[in-house]
Amino acid sequence: MKVRWLPTWLASYDRGKAAQDLVAGIVVTILLVPQSLAYAMLAGLPPHVGMYASILPLVAYAVLGSSMTLSVGPVAVASLMTASAVAPLAAAGSAEYVLLAMLLALLGGVVLLLLGLLRMGFVANLLSHPVISGFVTGSAVLIALGQLKPLLGVPAKGETALELAVSLFSRAGDLHVPTAVLGLSSVLALWASRRFLAGGLRRAGMGNKSAEILAKLAPMVVVLLAIAAVVALRLDTDAGVAVVGSIPAGLPSLAFTLPTMGQLQALAVPAVMIALIGFVESVSVAQSLAIKRGERINPDAELRGLGAANLASALSGGFPVTGGFARSVVNFAAGARTPVAGVIAAVFMGVVLLGLTGLFERLPLAVLAATIIVAVVGLVDFATVRHAWHYDRADAVAWLVTAVGVLALGVEAGVGLGVAMSIGTFLWRASRPHIAVVGRVGDSEHFRNERRFAVQTYPGLLLMRVDESLFFANMPAVLGRIEEEIERQENTRHLVLDLSSVSHIDLTAVEALQRLHADLRERGIELHLAEVRGPVMDRLEQTELPRKLAHKPFLNLHEATSALVPAASRQRASPLPKNTPARSNA
Amino acid sequence: MKVRWLPTWLASYDRGKAAQDLVAGIVVTILLVPQSLAYAMLAGLPPHVGMYASILPLVAYAVLGSSMTLSVGPVAVASLMTASAVAPLAAAGSAEYVLLAMLLALLGGVVLLLLGLLRMGFVANLLSHPVISGFVTGSAVLIALGQLKPLLGVPAKGETALELAVSLFSRAGDLHVPTAVLGLSSVLALWASRRFLAGGLRRAGMGNKSAEILAKLAPMVVVLLAIAAVVALRLDTDAGVAVVGSIPAGLPSLAFTLPTMGQLQALAVPAVMIALIGFVESVSVAQSLAIKRGERINPDAELRGLGAANLASALSGGFPVTGGFARSVVNFAAGARTPVAGVIAAVFMGVVLLGLTGLFERLPLAVLAATIIVAVVGLVDFATVRHAWHYDRADAVAWLVTAVGVLALGVEAGVGLGVAMSIGTFLWRASRPHIAVVGRVGDSEHFRNERRFAVQTYPGLLLMRVDESLFFANMPAVLGRIEEEIERQENTRHLVLDLSSVSHIDLTAVEALQRLHADLRERGIELHLAEVRGPVMDRLEQTELPRKLAHKPFLNLHEATSALVPAASRQRASPLPKNTPARSNA
Repeated sequence: MKVRWLPTWLASYDRGKAAQDLVAGIVVTILLVPQSLAYAMLAGLPPHVGMYASILPLVAYAVLGSSMTLSVGPVAVASLMTASAVAPLAAAGSAEYVLLAMLLALLGGVVLLLLGLLRMGFVANLLSHPVISGFVTGSAVLIALGQLKPLLGVPAKGETALELAVSLFSRAGDLHVPTAVLGLSSVLALWASRRFLAGGLRRAGMGNKSAEILAKLAPMVVVLLAIAAVVALRLDTDAGVAVVGSIPAGLPSLAFTLPTMGQLQALAVPAVMIALIGFVESVSVAQSLAIKRGERINPDAELRGLGAANLASALSGGFPVTGGFARSVVNFAAGARTPVAGVIAAVFMGVVLLGLTGLFERLPLAVLAATIIVAVVGLVDFATVRHAWHYDRADAVAWLVTAVGVLALGVEAGVGLGVAMSIGTFLWRASRPHIAVVGRVGDSEHFRNERRFAVQTYPGLLLMRVDESLFFANMPAVLGRIEEEIERQENTRHLVLDLSSVSHIDLTAVEALQRLHADLRERGIELHLAEVRGPVMDRLEQTELPRKLAHKPFLNLHEATSALVPAASRQRASPLPKNTPARSNA
Repeated sequence: MKVRWLPTWLASYDRGKAAQDLVAGIVVTILLVPQSLAYAMLAGLPPHVGMYASILPLVAYAVLGSSMTLSVGPVAVASLMTASAVAPLAAAGSAEYVLLAMLLALLGGVVLLLLGLLRMGFVANLLSHPVISGFVTGSAVLIALGQLKPLLGVPAKGETALELAVSLFSRAGDLHVPTAVLGLSSVLALWASRRFLAGGLRRAGMGNKSAEILAKLAPMVVVLLAIAAVVALRLDTDAGVAVVGSIPAGLPSLAFTLPTMGQLQALAVPAVMIALIGFVESVSVAQSLAIKRGERINPDAELRGLGAANLASALSGGFPVTGGFARSVVNFAAGARTPVAGVIAAVFMGVVLLGLTGLFERLPLAVLAATIIVAVVGLVDFATVRHAWHYDRADAVAWLVTAVGVLALGVEAGVGLGVAMSIGTFLWRASRPHIAVVGRVGDSEHFRNERRFAVQTYPGLLLMRVDESLFFANMPAVLGRIEEEIERQENTRHLVLDLSSVSHIDLTAVEALQRLHADLRERGIELHLAEVRGPVMDRLEQTELPRKLAHKPFLNLHEATSALVPAASRQRASPLPKNTPARSNA
């Protein structure tokens, strides 16, 4: 018997893959060290909490997740959401603040695990791409604005983008010059390396891939240079530049204080939102990488993997984690073949935490702010709203509502608005289905929309096709349109509904069809069905409808016209020359 | 120029219709008098408020509504919702209570008018039939339980069904015997007349229609008999039977006190829910009656008509009104031809209020409770959940959740749950679309599901049909299924997606298709589209996709196979004898 709870990749693991995973693990560690410190700061937490969240969670995901290349750990958006959830409940820097952040991870982990066990991976599908893009863009702007405080050493305050901007502007005179110089030059260096380094290295003869990976590791170089500058110029003690400060060395202790009911209630909604949004982003990153290698992502396994990662983070003193975009891309590019790469990164993070934390104690906060700003500016995505504007206004509006919502009302309200917009748009669209009156194309067996094609119709016979599943929200529109067409063609004796595009008929709709059948019959019109899909027919058999119809559902409209139109009238009916060319190719 | 704001039926109004409307108006008045008193009591309001809500609203609806036969006024469910919204905010019987009920009507009226002006009639479609049925059934049980208090004279208390039942049971010993005797015998009389009277009258030689109308007027007879009994036996003064008490005679004064912001906020959500649920019920009643005569209901006009009716109710001292089921059926059966029947009923209600209120002062509350109980028991609908159980479990669950939600959590939470269930079910279903691998039926030009039909397929050519519009929530499932099929048929060179059932592709889906195209090409597989609907193609033209495809979208799968399969291989490919009969007719 196959042991099913062991990951499938383990069976074919070999030395070659191990070597590739080792390289990727080291590369990811170099990226992860500054990121873990920075995102902890963004979440309002002590820097070592970020490192705690970058060890056990990676191992937990490796065991349960389904992606070969996803790099789990602290990420920008989840860190921002953590700050916005915890800040109103506890003082920044207090032990309670850290506890509440752990609690967020714990609750989120439980929710994800439960959803995973219930196989509810489909909930991720409630977020459309424009909503995610609008949300990430709004969050990125909000994060960047917030990081201007440590970057410039300006003592600004504010929750929403507007408050932050006003506060930054009015306190601009109070900026701390040495901090601002360090911060802005770090931004410049990071931006330049992101923009030009890979190209430069390639021109210098380096391989494509190595150049790109090396360029992505620039943050570590900037961090080390900044530390060197602080040490050499005593910028922290003499010039008052804020630095990370002492980091407790050693591995996190596995411990957890029981939360109160009040804390649980206050954090429940944010925890679910952080978990779900993290899950959605994570799955989309994992999927886009998997598809490049023909691998597959299992959303339910992702729920379990990320759930376990968050539980592990909570138990080891961390905060909410998920799959990071930039890090996963680096992991993929560095050649990671299996989740073992993540385990290796976790081991090296442990080594750093055991022995090298002293190195980062004099790292300026302004440099961490710079790495965050440069990272999130890359998340800003105006291309999506531009495409949406041309392709589908409703999607563009969903993007705008979400992005503006995040900036003006905060992350939770913004994403709530966006989801409501997406679902609302979908329902609105489904409630106004495309309905075509169809006719025969030339003398073929094909029937097409009479508005787009030159088709022949038959007196007394109304052929209609509904291009949408029939359900409670669109049945009124369908009935209205049928009534309209019957009024237009007063001599109608037979109405044939082509259900080729109908993949489901809910109870409300089937009852409406039964009433329609009875009402039409009273008015001397017979209702017929044609091209009923198999699964739909299976369900209709459970109702009276098929037995009440004058004729069993026709295989297609050709069969329907053959049966319902007398042969003589079929010939007379054609008002058009045969083989009339179509007016449109659609 | 045609004056468009005059109702269209006015042009063809004649003496014959006027005579029919007069009869229907009188019949409706006889039904409306006890109903208006009873539903005011159900809403916790003085009885005359019910009469106020039965005059001007009828006139307002007659001017703006689109139904020829809908009878607007107080109804059971809206009255229950009014009580549950206002009771926590003001003492029963206080002037403030009456004011807040008026405010509910005002707010609801404004919301309906706004939705009507914005042509948002489609919001009614968010409530599926199982949700409405579950809601009405749960409400009916809740109302009936609540009315056992005045019916039996038991001083019970409670908001939810459970609380009420427990309280009634524990205080059962305190019942007031004369009240209970009056109440129970009224229930018996009403039930018997509802059950047997029409049949008896028919057997006695009365016409079908007259018998039915007369039987429906039994409440008025019971009311008059009960008043006679109270007067004759002095049941109110001597036996302590609770009666209606003094009703201020005269027409309502058109007046309104300005509400405070706090009151507005507390009532906003209930007002919207009462208005929307009333609207949905009303439209479904109006539609089912209109369809019997080939008339049509305009949901936007209904919004305006009901909005105006509620404003009129608020301005004349009433409470939320909507179209009533039982009353509209009587109006229809009594021969109402136009909304003039409603105006006539309003005039007669005015006459009653001017001169006959004294008659109802000694009407026992137990009898009103009896009319309510018998009326709402008729609303209980287990047939829908039984049908749903056989036809579509998800619909049955939605019914149960809504009904149990109303009973256990109250009307608002119940309907909220039900709507969430309906939309959730729909999204869940749409996120798991039916996807078929198709092949050629015999040597025809038709392509069907290879699992249901004996079809021929072609090596290297994968033909798939998605039976649902492509949008953010179902694209992951579509991509997953495509990957699965490609893995199963390793030698695939061409993937043709038949989009005949796809009536919309949102931005998320079109981006996913573009990525799919790029990824497949890297793996040596070409993506093709076939049978793209006109409106879908119009949109796709706005994207890069059609230009990136190796071949322009095929008109149908027959054309696609002709183009993609070399003629020789087409003949070799068929593994089946020609004209193989289909395995299923679906």
